[in-house]
Parts: sequence; structure tokens; C-alpha cells
Amino acid sequence: MSGMFEPRDADYKARVKASFARQHFMELLGITMVHVAPGECDLILTPRQALHQQHGFVHAGATTTMADSAAGYAASTLFEANNSVLTTEFKMNLLNPARGDRLVARGRVIKPGRTLTICRSDVFGITDETETHLATGLFTMMAVSGLRN
Amino acid sequence: MSGMFEPRDADYKARVKASFARQHFMELLGITMVHVAPGECDLILTPRQALHQQHGFVHAGATTTMADSAAGYAASTLFEANNSVLTTEFKMNLLNPARGDRLVARGRVIKPGRTLTICRSDVFGITDETETHLATGLFTMMAVSGLRN
Amino acid sequence: MSGMFEPRDADYKARVKASFARQHFMELLGITMVHVAPGECDLILTPRQALHQQHGFVHAGATTTMADSAAGYAASTLFEANNSVLTTEFKMNLLNPARGDRLVARGRVIKPGRTLTICRSDVFGITDETETHLATGLFTMMAVSGLRN
Amino acid sequence: MSGMFEPRDADYKARVKASFARQHFMELLGITMVHVAPGECDLILTPRQALHQQHGFVHAGATTTMADSAAGYAASTLFEANNSVLTTEFKMNLLNPARGDRLVARGRVIKPGRTLTICRSDVFGITDETETHLATGLFTMMAVSGLRN
Repeated sequence: MSGMFEPRDADYKARVKASFARQHFMELLGITMVHVAPGECDLILTPRQALHQQHGFVHAGATTTMADSAAGYAASTLFEANNSVLTTEFKMNLLNPARGDRLVARGRVIKPGRTLTICRSDVFGITDETETHLATGLFTMMAVSGLRN
Repeated sequence: MSGMFEPRDADYKARVKASFARQHFMELLGITMVHVAPGECDLILTPRQALHQQHGFVHAGATTTMADSAAGYAASTLFEANNSVLTTEFKMNLLNPARGDRLVARGRVIKPGRTLTICRSDVFGITDETETHLATGLFTMMAVSGLRN
Repeated sequence: MSGMFEPRDADYKARVKASFARQHFMELLGITMVHVAPGECDLILTPRQALHQQHGFVHAGATTTMADSAAGYAASTLFEANNSVLTTEFKMNLLNPARGDRLVARGRVIKPGRTLTICRSDVFGITDETETHLATGLFTMMAVSGLRN
Repeated sequence: MSGMFEPRDADYKARVKASFARQHFMELLGITMVHVAPGECDLILTPRQALHQQHGFVHAGATTTMADSAAGYAASTLFEANNSVLTTEFKMNLLNPARGDRLVARGRVIKPGRTLTICRSDVFGITDETETHLATGLFTMMAVSGLRN
């Protein structure tokens, strides 16, 4: 999908990064933003024990948080400057136990819209140079005005 | 659905509670278990700033974590003693901004099965005596042997 | 949820029934509307060979069609007179093989909204006086103006 | 994903086509199979009035039927000879009104498994040489023995 989308807000990168920086939950989990482009956002996370479920893998709630935020900011890159993003719904399929030296979530816009933007988001575990597909999801994001970004 | 299900493991409560206690991610978020019965599990969370998204509401990743764990342990109450639970997929609809003095997730089994158990899970925000429906979801849980509970 | 909702269009029943009557696909499948109330719609179908999948059960596409239309018209009962309904997304869990003397889909509004209305929809197979839960789903319906109902 | 998968049943094509031919519902809707390869299946449909919803577009139930069957047979190409496919759950996002000279559904395996196989399925409308993305979905398919294919 890369290169398909034209942002309506020339300053979308600064806007997206500032909004991400206000998400305390990203800080609690240790999620950082490593890529922003029109219709795209990648986030990474280094697994640690505090994020584990009962078998010692990263909890699906943590990988879903990454997937959701990556999808949301991918959508947000295409919004007007005064619009903020809310997730209205999503679906995740968990494909493999979540582990790796590093996890990356890649959010990509499938279809932008004035009100609703549909995204997919995939989470991979990276160990050495091998990527394992951990989860795939579909997200509906809504552009809302009247909320701080 | 209450009262519809017969557990196959008489000691299901202790098993479910011990598994929950091993989830470091529950501790990081501050989620505690307040109800376990055959096919049922309720979890609660007191919102705090570390769980917020950019607008000051609880992040969808945190409410989803609650919903997922409540659904998973609801399913687990009906498992054989040597089976452990894994989420294979789920879908969430976010209905209202996540806030309240306390959040509660109520996981309920819709259909138990030898391999797959289907659950719904609903998250509510409670302020004084008022409950607001924050999110509703459907989950597919899998019984797996050979993993520690 | 019964009795929770106030329709904004006093003539919602006639509007919903007229819209349903224009759906040629309902006629092809043999789906009829048997109940409409604020936030509610039930549809029925009598299984026949033309609706079967490869094992002789009703195809998931047919039960999904029922579930989707029941959810859509449940939402539509709460719309303004000049708004029409479009499904934006949905999720189905198939619980049991789809069979019975009669199938019924029950669409119910979970949360109405000006733009988006969230519904659940359940499909049951009825044989004699026994109901079997065949499928459960969550649907996001959108109110759109400028389309004929 | 093309070329990634090794079928376990050398005769998968004949098996998949024979199973498809037993689906009366495909015949009722006018869906035909145009491509089968390991982990892949494409189906086509020519829109006609009998498939329409109230606005004159193809009903979401018909596009979902295509998407579901394409995903199911994509999964089935990787099954053992004596296993049959059942859809356990799926999620669809409807992206554009369903119309075109021809609709095509492309089912692709994302992750094969002994019990569960995860697929995506996309539906496109084709008019002249232009493809419009109508719908995208994620499906969980189950391999079951003891049912006729």
C-alpha cells in the first residue's frame, strides 16, 4: 500500500508523534514509535517479564495494544489537522506465541474515509534476522473533532 | 447463562486463580479477579493515569486485556485439570470512552467445547451506582495440553 | 434490551418493512421478517437443499445473511425517517452445524448512535420446541442519508 | 504468500473441486471456482438483481458467502485427504458498495495448522480493467475428520 496516500495535513508527522507522546499507556508498556508515513505507522516493544501471561509469552493484551496504536496512528496520518482518532472496533487473530528479542507492530491503512478508516495491523516477533508472524488484525478507526489530538 | 455449566475439574477455582496469579501483565495493569464460577469470570481495574490514551481515557488495550483475561478464565473453569487456555482470536466493539471509578470485565462462556470454547466478554465502567457499557467482545479460546496452566 | 429504546421515526415499522421488501436477496433465500420493535428485528428461514453447503447443513453465508439483515433492520428501527442503513463490518462465531425445521435470526441493538449503531445478532435452529444456538455475531451499522431506504 | 505452502494431499485440487461442486448454495448464487493452488482459492460471481439488497448493490451476505468459501477452500488445499473444512468464525469489513461487471473473492492462507488454519479473503469488483476493493476479512477454518469432504 506504500505511497498510495496523500496526507491532508502537511504537518501530520509532528501531530502524530505529539499525540503518541501523550499516551501514558505506551510508556507503561515500553512501546515506541519507529516509523510514520502516509497511511503507515510502526511501533516496537522489547518483551520483559512484566508483560507476560501465565506461560511466559507476551500477553495478547500487550500485542493488541501495539497493533491498535499502530493502526490508529496509521489512520491518523491521513486525517485533517483538527481531527483526532478513536478505535471503534477491531478483530485480532493470534497466530503464534508472542515472543522475540523485539516485537514490531505494522499498522497500514486499507481504506481511508472522511468518517471511518479501515486498517490492518500485523505484529511480528524478531529474533536475530528471523521474523515470526504473531498476530494479524483489522481495525475501524473514526475521525473525531472536538477532542484534543 | 449462569448455572448452565458443569465443571469437569472439581478444583477449577484454585487452578484458575493460580494461573491468574502467574500473569505478570495483570499485576502491571492492576487487574484483580473478583468472581469465578462455572463458565464465568469477572475482573476489576481501578483506572489511573498510567493506563490512559491520549484523551485521558483508559486505553482500549487495557480494557481489551481485561476482557480477554476474563473470557479466557471463564473458558478455563470448564477445562480438564491438565488443560491450559490460549486465546486464538477475538473481536471487540468499543461502545463508550473507558472511564469510571472502577472498570469491570465480565467473561461468560457461550459455548464450551473440547477444543474450542466461545465466550463473550463485556466491560463496564462503574461510577457511584451507575454502570456504563464500555465494550463488548467475542472470543475463541483453545484448550491446550502440555503447557503449564 | 427490550423496551430500552425510543424510535425517532414514529413510522419506523412501515419504513423497515418496505426496505426489507426491496431486498431481492431475501426473496432468493426465502427469508421473511416476523418481528420488528424498537431496536429489535427477527427473521426466519426454512432450510432447503438449495441453501446447503457440502455437508448438507445450511451454508454459513445464508445464516450470516439472516444475522446481518436482522441486525441492520434492528438498527434501522431507531434511525431518522430519511436515513438508510449500511453494514460497515461484522464478526460471526459459528457455534453448531446450521440445521433445524426453521432458523431464526434475532438482531438486537446494543448501542444506538447518530452515525454508528452496534448490534448483536444470534441465529437459532428450531426443531419441535428445542432451540439450538447456531451462531452469534456483532455488527456495526451506519446511518446514511441520500440513499433510498 | 504464493508458493509458500506444500500440500499434504497430492490430489488436493480434485478433492477441493468435488467438495465445491456439492455446495448447492454456490449454485443458487451463481458462484464458480476459477483458481486453486496451495493455500489459495479464487471464486467469481456475476452480479444480478436476485442478489441485491435494498439499494441495488450486491447483498453483504452474498459477498461474505464468496469470501467464506474462497477462504475455506484455500485452507482445504493444505489439509490431509480425509479432512474436511468448517468455518469456525470470521470477520468482514465492507469497504465499498458491492457492484461491478464481475466480483472476485481471493482466499489466501495466512497460517496453516493441524487443527486451525487462519485465512484472509478479499472481495473485489471488476469493471472493465478496474478493480475496486469491496471487502476484506479474516477467517478461522477448522480441519475435521469424519465428515464427507
